[in-house]
Amino acid sequence: MDVVMRIEQTLDGALSEAEGAGAPPGLAAAMRHAVFPGGARIRPRLCLAVARACGAEDFSAAAATAASIELLHCASLVHDDLPCFDDAPVRRGKPSVHRAFGEPLAVLAGDALIVLAFETLARHAAACPERLATLLLCVGRSVGMPFGIVAGQAWESEPRVDLARYHRAKTGALFAAATVGGAAAAGVESAPWRCLGEKIGEAFQVADDIRDVAGDPDELGKPVGRDAALGRMSAARELGIDGALDRLDLLIGEAAESIPRCPGAAELRALIRLEAQRFLPKELVRVAA
Amino acid sequence: MDVVMRIEQTLDGALSEAEGAGAPPGLAAAMRHAVFPGGARIRPRLCLAVARACGAEDFSAAAATAASIELLHCASLVHDDLPCFDDAPVRRGKPSVHRAFGEPLAVLAGDALIVLAFETLARHAAACPERLATLLLCVGRSVGMPFGIVAGQAWESEPRVDLARYHRAKTGALFAAATVGGAAAAGVESAPWRCLGEKIGEAFQVADDIRDVAGDPDELGKPVGRDAALGRMSAARELGIDGALDRLDLLIGEAAESIPRCPGAAELRALIRLEAQRFLPKELVRVAA
Repeated sequence: MDVVMRIEQTLDGALSEAEGAGAPPGLAAAMRHAVFPGGARIRPRLCLAVARACGAEDFSAAAATAASIELLHCASLVHDDLPCFDDAPVRRGKPSVHRAFGEPLAVLAGDALIVLAFETLARHAAACPERLATLLLCVGRSVGMPFGIVAGQAWESEPRVDLARYHRAKTGALFAAATVGGAAAAGVESAPWRCLGEKIGEAFQVADDIRDVAGDPDELGKPVGRDAALGRMSAARELGIDGALDRLDLLIGEAAESIPRCPGAAELRALIRLEAQRFLPKELVRVAA
Repeated sequence: MDVVMRIEQTLDGALSEAEGAGAPPGLAAAMRHAVFPGGARIRPRLCLAVARACGAEDFSAAAATAASIELLHCASLVHDDLPCFDDAPVRRGKPSVHRAFGEPLAVLAGDALIVLAFETLARHAAACPERLATLLLCVGRSVGMPFGIVAGQAWESEPRVDLARYHRAKTGALFAAATVGGAAAAGVESAPWRCLGEKIGEAFQVADDIRDVAGDPDELGKPVGRDAALGRMSAARELGIDGALDRLDLLIGEAAESIPRCPGAAELRALIRLEAQRFLPKELVRVAA
């Protein structure tokens, strides 16, 4: 099955469980609004690509891991958009969840998506029960305290922020879960895959900073210039567009080099270089070295 | 080891993992504020009592299940207290988390406690990996959609509410997780234990309604009269205090009768009748029938 379709089907299956007969309809609709239609699904695609590169034959554990990571990503977007954080009116070209459904259901939709992520892992564990604890701890680490997304977001409430730690937690952690989780789902030693995820996460953050300065809001489905408006740290504002593009090239090169020995290393390396170009506004894409 | 001490130690161990070196200190403090000092820890004590009644010999899985249930309970209190829901200033005799740490860290503390609950289950799975998926799905069901706490809270945003469904999700689900999870952690068939948890949950809800009308705010550690102020459904307001006390007696009797055949049934039955008295303001306790 096509990778993208597999991800959408697994996400749809998870949402359908949450929408069972007798569910409060507003919250069910808010959850679906948060997950569909999706963005680029970069994290779950990375997870499945790593599982394939590791030689996985049965993709059910990898698909569950990929879906759980995407559900957690969507949950974090819903909560980040709340009035007490970014107060974002628009997300993926639609009203944000709290604008569409009100603040109470936005808080609950984020909560429910976090729970659903862990349930999705548990439901698909039948094929490989011995891997469940590893996958759970990998995914949990990427979103919880002390080093996951919530920790990253919490650094915004601290008077002094270690910038590298902030980005590693807020953006890098979920990419690391994608690579480590993909390898663990394939049944291979997963720790050596962390570096790849962290490098891609860092590259994604730089590309996101560039888009926020130079992107097209219609193409992005959200407003630009938010980093400057909110006084946030940004590679593009620190290094300039050209400096940020150089940094992005360097990180993608390091990411490609960090891929552990595995059956599909060459193919994965090519895929990562190709995907990196998708991160950027079209007019800024350089020809790959 | 004493049951209460075992619960506090497991919770403290879980929090310590979240507070690892490099954690954002504000969020770490907000999480601890939400969990310690605790309330009556009714749900985790019930979970351990059921595991004991089922003849469990190793309590590590039961303690992890009990702690995860309490962490989810604390998470739900933090989010329920937010300005967009109850806007509660006080909880357990202290400022609520958003009053003490601000709204952003309160949202994140709830999120982080949900994640920590699932991580706590996974970390203690070493002793019985084959039970992990069952325990996860049991706990997940009690807090997620379509029948868990978040679903219960979401019914407050609906124009038409099925009252029984609302209470079953908002209060009953976590008590059911305590009984079902306690039995599953002990390795016995867990489904027959759901009725006990649901009855106790319903009894607890009635007692809570009574306390909200007739309780002492100092003893409760939170204001009374909130149900009336917020226009919420309440057994005490519908049936009067005497009617509500009759209903409570009936539910506790039904709960005691529903206990499945197990080595410690008689002891558990006595414990439940005793604990039920603790639900109430002292002056309203009737002599057990």
